[in-house]
Amino acid sequence: MVLMRRELGDVLREERRAQKRSLRDVSASAAVSLGYLSEIERGEKEASSELLGAICEALGLPLSALLRELSTRVAVAEGFASPVVLPVSSLGDVSASAA
Amino acid sequence: MVLMRRELGDVLREERRAQKRSLRDVSASAAVSLGYLSEIERGEKEASSELLGAICEALGLPLSALLRELSTRVAVAEGFASPVVLPVSSLGDVSASAA
Repeated sequence: MVLMRRELGDVLREERRAQKRSLRDVSASAAVSLGYLSEIERGEKEASSELLGAICEALGLPLSALLRELSTRVAVAEGFASPVVLPVSSLGDVSASAA
Repeated sequence: MVLMRRELGDVLREERRAQKRSLRDVSASAAVSLGYLSEIERGEKEASSELLGAICEALGLPLSALLRELSTRVAVAEGFASPVVLPVSSLGDVSASAA
């Protein structure tokens, strides 16, 4: 089973590094402890919706953009070449091929 | 702040209803209590990554498809006409217009 928090942690860490910001900086902006943010980035802790929103704000990142990137990564992890689009009741018609 | 669990609950409930399935049916398949699933659908409880995966499996829904739909809805809630795509370091260039 693909675990959302692992992929989410990867996206958050890569985005922070792309901005050349430290855990200390982002954790202070998001009002979360450095250790907790680090655990979230490693996929070891679930972030509540409020905390996720605060981290997105600290990164200047719309939650929708984060979720879209997450969707793309999870699709790869699930073996789809590209994200599956709802409605899923016709999943058999989806042309995504296994990676 | 847009809360992910609220939008997530809406997507899960609508998908379950589109499949004409009851809370009882899906909660049994996902091995979660009916009351807890109902709270998740109402956006009152956070679902762990494991539980979210189990609910997706019960609905026959790839997690990536759920996240993509979620991204689209959150984009609307955030006032973007369409989802913002990463990289976000160039957010100023994003042509999404406020709703």
